[in-house]
Amino acid sequence: MEECIEHVRIYTGRIINLNVDRVRLQSGRESTREYVEHRGAVAAIPVLPDGRIVFVKQYRYPVKEYLIEIPAGTIEVGEDPVQTMHRELVEEIGYRAGKLEEVINYYSTPGFVTERMYIYIATELEPAKGELDPEENIEVLYMTFEEAIEAIKRGDIKDGKTLVALALYGLSRCSDT
Amino acid sequence: MEECIEHVRIYTGRIINLNVDRVRLQSGRESTREYVEHRGAVAAIPVLPDGRIVFVKQYRYPVKEYLIEIPAGTIEVGEDPVQTMHRELVEEIGYRAGKLEEVINYYSTPGFVTERMYIYIATELEPAKGELDPEENIEVLYMTFEEAIEAIKRGDIKDGKTLVALALYGLSRCSDT
Repeated sequence: MEECIEHVRIYTGRIINLNVDRVRLQSGRESTREYVEHRGAVAAIPVLPDGRIVFVKQYRYPVKEYLIEIPAGTIEVGEDPVQTMHRELVEEIGYRAGKLEEVINYYSTPGFVTERMYIYIATELEPAKGELDPEENIEVLYMTFEEAIEAIKRGDIKDGKTLVALALYGLSRCSDT
Repeated sequence: MEECIEHVRIYTGRIINLNVDRVRLQSGRESTREYVEHRGAVAAIPVLPDGRIVFVKQYRYPVKEYLIEIPAGTIEVGEDPVQTMHRELVEEIGYRAGKLEEVINYYSTPGFVTERMYIYIATELEPAKGELDPEENIEVLYMTFEEAIEAIKRGDIKDGKTLVALALYGLSRCSDT
């Protein structure tokens, strides 16, 4: 346990807040903890009836690269994660999901970020064209699971949540056989 | 692409920096991007000769929980990731690794953090007792791979890098058979 002695809000933003708390460590010594508050996020592997997975490719300003990821988004205030996921699937790839199954939820970077990430498998997908969010500059890509694994090996997929989702999905398919 | 119009440093810290840049989007519109700079980190699955994996359990202040993770650490200025990994294995679990193989490197949270994470498999482990970092309040745990997978299913392992590492390790074992 580490006890908060003083909670200091450095920055309050649109997506993240930054705190630098003064804490008492288990040893009794004092230290500081710099950490980012985030409302949490969702991501899903959208699996089409023919088995192909729908990905998005977009520019990620922090890392200055175009990344291939599964559809995802930040949970808005008052939203349930499942609700966020349905909304993001329509906005990012233009599909409505008949079925969303939670695979896991986890902390993306618990050392310095509070973000909890909810991962789903989205199936029974039906096109919901015309509702793509025009503000998002997103390219939609389709890959089989095997192609996605090859893309990971080549280094073409290097987004944390996408790796967690695909690897756990692969592991579940693998122990089924 | 998103072009930086103005780079604003909000906070310069010990582990992280916060920037809020003004950018021009592909559409021509202006927006802001809040993001955290981090030097990058390493993590390894340490596999003992008998196949058991060495984990650490520690309190993570941002999420206010004790988490089970693989040994990991932040890359210090001037350090090579492999050097960081060797140092962290000695400090956190008290083992020297004869062999470190890189499994993957990826972005943990590219939407708002620059952190790149390097994942290794550490083998040929030899005890290096007496060199554990006394500043780190860490409990060392041992699990077989199968026990670790059960721990994931029960929700007892919920750290992003640990999930990426274990699931990819499992997937590689699975396609070998």
